[in-house]
Amino acid sequence: MPSAGLLVIGNEILSGKIVDTNSPFLAGQLRELGVDLERILVIPDVVDTIAEETRRFSEAYDHVFTSGGIGPTHDDVTMEAIAQAFDRRLLLDDQICARIERTQQEPLNDAMKKMAFMPEGASIIDVSDLWFPVIVLENVHILPGIPQLFEKKFNSIRDRFAGVPIHLKRIFVTRHESEIAEDLHALLREFSELMLGSYPRIGEPDYRVMLTLESRDADYLKRAAEALCARLPSEVILRVE
Amino acid sequence: MPSAGLLVIGNEILSGKIVDTNSPFLAGQLRELGVDLERILVIPDVVDTIAEETRRFSEAYDHVFTSGGIGPTHDDVTMEAIAQAFDRRLLLDDQICARIERTQQEPLNDAMKKMAFMPEGASIIDVSDLWFPVIVLENVHILPGIPQLFEKKFNSIRDRFAGVPIHLKRIFVTRHESEIAEDLHALLREFSELMLGSYPRIGEPDYRVMLTLESRDADYLKRAAEALCARLPSEVILRVE
Repeated sequence: MPSAGLLVIGNEILSGKIVDTNSPFLAGQLRELGVDLERILVIPDVVDTIAEETRRFSEAYDHVFTSGGIGPTHDDVTMEAIAQAFDRRLLLDDQICARIERTQQEPLNDAMKKMAFMPEGASIIDVSDLWFPVIVLENVHILPGIPQLFEKKFNSIRDRFAGVPIHLKRIFVTRHESEIAEDLHALLREFSELMLGSYPRIGEPDYRVMLTLESRDADYLKRAAEALCARLPSEVILRVE
Repeated sequence: MPSAGLLVIGNEILSGKIVDTNSPFLAGQLRELGVDLERILVIPDVVDTIAEETRRFSEAYDHVFTSGGIGPTHDDVTMEAIAQAFDRRLLLDDQICARIERTQQEPLNDAMKKMAFMPEGASIIDVSDLWFPVIVLENVHILPGIPQLFEKKFNSIRDRFAGVPIHLKRIFVTRHESEIAEDLHALLREFSELMLGSYPRIGEPDYRVMLTLESRDADYLKRAAEALCARLPSEVILRVE
């Protein structure tokens, strides 16, 4: 299965000033696509750090996504860092300059021009109605930190990342984890390929634990869910979704 | 200044099934305390991965926090992994066994007993009204994934992490980033120690960019904010907080 890593770049997340919504969005999207997201890493706006982690992620995962640090201000250093990661020069792109000028309808100042620099050899993918494209270098997809733009841009390149989707069943139970742990172990002995999660919740009025059963094989999942339901006393199971 | 790293352990976050609220909570808390959070890393429930990243984080940062993977089920492997990270044995702790028995008022089953295993040499910190303590090994603080418990346990050990608090001013401006970027550069030439963030927002009715100015020196911050306000045309500044 294709694997993926997400690098979230921004002091504002590490300092708790802004809540990162791009990670849960991308995690959900990749799950739907059947791509295995293996790491989410939040790092500061520091060129050497971004470059080093980009290199590591690029080697470790099939697809890498970055979020943030591509605007016109001093703290936007992602392009420079990604160029450094792959030992490329950062070059002014005439095509992007022309787009910015068309959008702004005025000559570029230095800040706007900064957004037209990109790593040598990067690909430019047009995004329907946005003037700024998605930049891709090797297997690294460079996305903006602003959630509306992150989501719009990801949606425009989504089809490139098809895996084999994972089927999911949720079973909500009314007992504590420690009371059902042995049944879960037994289930895994019978269905060793099953992805089985157990998530206790506090403050839910009706259930104690949400179990998630997942598989890329819908029939295998169905049989595993039936086996678990047969194993647990019926009054323990609140509902299956 | 003390530094910190947070390891979030859980397939449920990487698969988008559960949104991680522990990271923004801890980021905000550490900021208030003046501890520099340098990394947040989300990893799957895999023993070798958790062990390797725990070792790396423990060497890199003054304080390490882990979230998740300490319950009684098959997917709770954090204790085992942290023991492996520091080459310690995992031992059954009689004191914790006794606590669990007192709380449950029945003999321990295997699942409950699993929660009483901890790495040799770990410290046990009591948390007021919770039966399960916080376990600390070297500089690694092992916290649960359930948000209510994560927050309660962190609050109970919060005083151990005093740094020098950072003062913050927010300035909301009505221009695009590219129109104020040069003013921000000039400000940083004058106040090179200032932590300056620039965060464009889409969909805000009144402002285009939130600027954050931060410093551990309240007077330095005040002078920097005044210098920026003097530099920007007054109609550009919507409000200062």
